[in-house]
Amino acid sequence: MGLWYDEHYKDQIRFGLKVKQTLFMGQSPYQKVAVVDTEAFGRALLLDDVWMTSEWDEHYYHEMLVHPAMTTAPKIDRVLIVGGGDGGTAREVLRYPEVKEVVLVEIDELVVEASKNYLPTIGTAWDDPRLKVYYQDAVAWVQNAELGSFDVILIDGADPVGPAEGLFASTFYEACKAAMKPHGVFVTQNESPVIYRDTHVQTIRRMAEVFGSSHPYYSTVPLYCGGEWSWTWASRETDPLAVIPERAALVEQSTKLYNAEYHRGAFAIPNRLKRQLGR
Amino acid sequence: MGLWYDEHYKDQIRFGLKVKQTLFMGQSPYQKVAVVDTEAFGRALLLDDVWMTSEWDEHYYHEMLVHPAMTTAPKIDRVLIVGGGDGGTAREVLRYPEVKEVVLVEIDELVVEASKNYLPTIGTAWDDPRLKVYYQDAVAWVQNAELGSFDVILIDGADPVGPAEGLFASTFYEACKAAMKPHGVFVTQNESPVIYRDTHVQTIRRMAEVFGSSHPYYSTVPLYCGGEWSWTWASRETDPLAVIPERAALVEQSTKLYNAEYHRGAFAIPNRLKRQLGR
Repeated sequence: MGLWYDEHYKDQIRFGLKVKQTLFMGQSPYQKVAVVDTEAFGRALLLDDVWMTSEWDEHYYHEMLVHPAMTTAPKIDRVLIVGGGDGGTAREVLRYPEVKEVVLVEIDELVVEASKNYLPTIGTAWDDPRLKVYYQDAVAWVQNAELGSFDVILIDGADPVGPAEGLFASTFYEACKAAMKPHGVFVTQNESPVIYRDTHVQTIRRMAEVFGSSHPYYSTVPLYCGGEWSWTWASRETDPLAVIPERAALVEQSTKLYNAEYHRGAFAIPNRLKRQLGR
Repeated sequence: MGLWYDEHYKDQIRFGLKVKQTLFMGQSPYQKVAVVDTEAFGRALLLDDVWMTSEWDEHYYHEMLVHPAMTTAPKIDRVLIVGGGDGGTAREVLRYPEVKEVVLVEIDELVVEASKNYLPTIGTAWDDPRLKVYYQDAVAWVQNAELGSFDVILIDGADPVGPAEGLFASTFYEACKAAMKPHGVFVTQNESPVIYRDTHVQTIRRMAEVFGSSHPYYSTVPLYCGGEWSWTWASRETDPLAVIPERAALVEQSTKLYNAEYHRGAFAIPNRLKRQLGR
């Protein structure tokens, strides 16, 4: 038998991995943080008993959060990451030599500490001099950020319950828009389009209200309930499908999932959602 | 707590659904057949304790198996379905008024009986006069089929262990090619590209050898381990991306997932597989 960790969704669905060893377990002011070593997915991070990322499948999530923004934004000098305490998003952003500064605002220092100690293969860029880390509530941080100062903003938060709830609010999107250049690109993880369908649709609509338009895109994250996952892309002036070939060619040398064709394909909207969104 | 059914993959990963009631459990000469009523996914079919389909998520699998073939094949008069005992594939094929005959060859009559009795919302087309059902080993059946007689062949079988193993062999693909018209389209479910990566890649290569080229495509099936799933499309004369607009417009009226844009997007190959396949 051995030891299993199961994430339960509404006491109806569970996804479990057999665990060789619990490497870390702690409680921060915000949440329970755990890192376990699993047989199938390698080392994995859980927050409040929900699977967040693993060594084996983290590229699905991080590549699809990062590269659709980074290959379309006209400039990528300054990038803001909200959340992202495991370091995977920063690592993907810092692959681009054009990037001059990455600001990572993570509310929970314990997530970063646990990830630095136990998930070193995910956060490989903590020592990059271009990266600045602040342990603060991003909602407040963005409201005080310099106006029009970011080229790309990436929201790498958890489900909209607990500490990440404010990252799905219109007021937060307004603050991000103000902190971003007009050509800037904003992308948020946007949940499972089926398991969290209401949140998913509401987020697309809110972002369209704030930014003028919004574009959901879809792929898989094996660790997340149901496997289907989504992100949503928005910009005032930039086209989500106009991939800059040089940038794509650069990252395609090392990506496991992402390439320019996959990028464009991911923006096709499943039919039922298309109908619901009126697109 | 309540009762849970968990599918185990290699005693390393498990995906479980809470069950309200076991509706049917039987043993055929080929496999154990069960239908359970789950809280989250409605009624669901298991073969040898592996999740096969459910009322709630069956459209992901059936729409993506059927419509990429049916919207690209120049003619769709005669369609062969291999496996497909739950009836979902036949239902999607029979949506097209152009279809004159559908032959379904399923090895296990118990799967069809259990599905007819307990999954009536999936197999809604059993009484369509265009549908002929044979309970035979499809490998032998196809070898004796009239040459060049089918426009579309769809392989709707289980994993390549047990009764479905022969459906992944080159000899079977050769027999299918012989039974198909030159413009005909052949599609098989082709497993998880990560969990069953070796099978997945081998199948793409075998099909390319037999048909001249082959085209994998990707989407999600929430019920299947890891969520990511694939199918592979092949034809001697037809283009997988040349969707016939009238056919797509017809089925898009009722599909939950499939539309022409989603079809084209699904054929983008994840980067690591693209490298491995040399494409």
